[in-house]
Amino acid sequence: MTAYLLTIGDEILIGQITDTNSAWMAQQLNLQGIRIAGKASVGDVHEEIVESVRYALSKADLVLMTGGLGATKDDITKKALADYFNVPMVFHDETYERMVGFFKKINRTVSEMNKNGCFMPQNAVILNNDRGLAPAMWFDTEGGKSLVSMPGVPHEMQHLMRKHVLPRLREHFPMSPIVHRTLLTSGEGETMLAEKLSNFEDALPDNVKLAYLPSLGTVRLRLTARGNNEAALHEQLDELKVELEKIVGYAVAGYDEDTMPIVIGRMLVERGLKLGVAESCTGGYLSHLLTTVSGCSTYFEGSTVVYSYELKEKLLDVSKTMLDTEGAVSENCVREMVTGTLDRLGVDVAVAVSGIAGPLGGTPDKPVGTVWIAVGNRVEMITYKISLDRGRLKNIEYAANTALNLLRKFLLHNIKATEKA
Amino acid sequence: MTAYLLTIGDEILIGQITDTNSAWMAQQLNLQGIRIAGKASVGDVHEEIVESVRYALSKADLVLMTGGLGATKDDITKKALADYFNVPMVFHDETYERMVGFFKKINRTVSEMNKNGCFMPQNAVILNNDRGLAPAMWFDTEGGKSLVSMPGVPHEMQHLMRKHVLPRLREHFPMSPIVHRTLLTSGEGETMLAEKLSNFEDALPDNVKLAYLPSLGTVRLRLTARGNNEAALHEQLDELKVELEKIVGYAVAGYDEDTMPIVIGRMLVERGLKLGVAESCTGGYLSHLLTTVSGCSTYFEGSTVVYSYELKEKLLDVSKTMLDTEGAVSENCVREMVTGTLDRLGVDVAVAVSGIAGPLGGTPDKPVGTVWIAVGNRVEMITYKISLDRGRLKNIEYAANTALNLLRKFLLHNIKATEKA
Repeated sequence: MTAYLLTIGDEILIGQITDTNSAWMAQQLNLQGIRIAGKASVGDVHEEIVESVRYALSKADLVLMTGGLGATKDDITKKALADYFNVPMVFHDETYERMVGFFKKINRTVSEMNKNGCFMPQNAVILNNDRGLAPAMWFDTEGGKSLVSMPGVPHEMQHLMRKHVLPRLREHFPMSPIVHRTLLTSGEGETMLAEKLSNFEDALPDNVKLAYLPSLGTVRLRLTARGNNEAALHEQLDELKVELEKIVGYAVAGYDEDTMPIVIGRMLVERGLKLGVAESCTGGYLSHLLTTVSGCSTYFEGSTVVYSYELKEKLLDVSKTMLDTEGAVSENCVREMVTGTLDRLGVDVAVAVSGIAGPLGGTPDKPVGTVWIAVGNRVEMITYKISLDRGRLKNIEYAANTALNLLRKFLLHNIKATEKA
Repeated sequence: MTAYLLTIGDEILIGQITDTNSAWMAQQLNLQGIRIAGKASVGDVHEEIVESVRYALSKADLVLMTGGLGATKDDITKKALADYFNVPMVFHDETYERMVGFFKKINRTVSEMNKNGCFMPQNAVILNNDRGLAPAMWFDTEGGKSLVSMPGVPHEMQHLMRKHVLPRLREHFPMSPIVHRTLLTSGEGETMLAEKLSNFEDALPDNVKLAYLPSLGTVRLRLTARGNNEAALHEQLDELKVELEKIVGYAVAGYDEDTMPIVIGRMLVERGLKLGVAESCTGGYLSHLLTTVSGCSTYFEGSTVVYSYELKEKLLDVSKTMLDTEGAVSENCVREMVTGTLDRLGVDVAVAVSGIAGPLGGTPDKPVGTVWIAVGNRVEMITYKISLDRGRLKNIEYAANTALNLLRKFLLHNIKATEKA
């Protein structure tokens, strides 16, 4: 089964917004075993929408559209679809009632323009939107294909996909079961993992595929199995997952929707440890990543961003003599930053980063991209050096992600608090 | 003149990467006065690439393609283009020599696979790539249209666009002059600005357009003028820009490629001031934004991320009594955080943020989204309160951006150091 994605809107074509909807939809369809034949964007122009709908339906069994349903701009997408299907627009009472209810809540009345937004192509199945005013519309074509039109606001579209579109898809297009297992890995590049997994991949049964989904500092490994018996597929993947984990070893950090900050948070909570951070070149980005997790105050105490020599001394007792002789980008500096963080912030474990993010500040023996990282507690400490320039922002991101992985490895070798008892 | 954008690659269709290239290309073409007729993505499949090239050339005068030129995967895009144009592939000596030179630098030799990557469609004009192995290719069609194929790596594509493609476009498609002026504004929403500028917009001459480009906390205003006499257009826009600035007033923060951290850095340097930061709910994100600017160590001393009550007391001398009675999310708390930062970090000006990013931690009188911000020096202090929940990550981003604008406003009212002397 194949799908084609269509995003509608002038704001996409002038580059004012980056289309993130189609990547999200592609991922969701992919998980259902649906291949994306292609995707396209067109502006808010009637005949271009009609033409692109015709083209999309010629290329795939299913077309998902987003955008052009807003109440403030002309409802061009709906009219274009009505014209494509050669049906009239009819007033949809339930959408109007929901609209009245919504406006009542915010003490406003429905304007004439809003009311006009309740006209829908006659052949549309209306899928209610709990997050906004414009519902989604499902159309079945005479040729046995389907087309779905959704609002372009990402969280509304995602809600409609989860609540209505994906379940309906499973009903309309009965597909053989598809089952996934996802592992989050960190610390090894895609090529390194692929080499290790070469024999494993060659030996995979025909109904199972392994996908590599890399991003900066992490690679997700996704096993996908298809077949007729869902229970058997789960059993098959659970066994392969164990095998995969054995080969990849310590690089496996988490599963499914885990991120590195979530994994680390869980480890700290399990061990009953408080974390402190000291940042120089990463300038707060490592702390930002750690605090993307709701509830992180349970284990995250805080950080210092000691950008200047003076602050390294003042806030973390880094020694002036060491700074003068070895510099701030040195193994001893991050070691002293860890010690200073343990002492001054009163935490159980600390991570420190110092380097040259660039493009300014490099020297022949410490070129841009040189970054030192240390993680330690009152008993042990480990350090790591990065030596590759990826450009300022990527250097910052990569250093922060590498620090997260070094922290994870350090915690791995520390027994859980619960196991101590 | 119109253009069509084509991005090639399975990784786009499975949603593994978000296509940011086409938004960037759209912006660049838009600045040149070129309208984007549409854009599409197809997978690494020969006949689909050929078909989409045919379709794209039927829709626009210019087609820009990215992707499918990698050396490690089959060079499907090049073969597809050679087949579309019905020309043979020929070995390109200069590309090979550049490749040999590149590998020599990293002490490696050119593999047979890399060497195969030097075959190009015979009718391609080769545009050298200084940032990677695969050059861009420019094709002129018999119908007077042009097609450009570039690598998909964003920084390589951007370099090739700036160095070769945009200058060549100006030669090949002489267009009437188009001139822009961009103002960065902060602190007022799009709707508020549009109301203020309503009369100004109505009175604009026919050859001038005003565009609103909003993002979280800032709105860029772009004036675009078209005509025959470029010097006259510059003069016209300079006058309109002065008028626009008078209406928008203090919300104007900068110009052209300025970002808020760049603007603030410039103001701090001009005034000879050192900045310190204290963050609670923003968790390091504000410091991260400030340190995205290369050379920021001139004016940015550092920060504390005081997530816990204990650290607010330990690192910034925030009073325990105040915390117990008023809480960490209070005007007095951010005031004390500013004072503590001035004292402990020894800086001239400080900014502090404390709030509830959520989704946990809200109370009836302090719901999720409540954020207090303060900016001050040893003489004066200003504060600001945010009361709207946008979801955890957006709350963090919005609070950090609002803090930047409050800092900018504070600095505006402080005389430049040079003017003091």
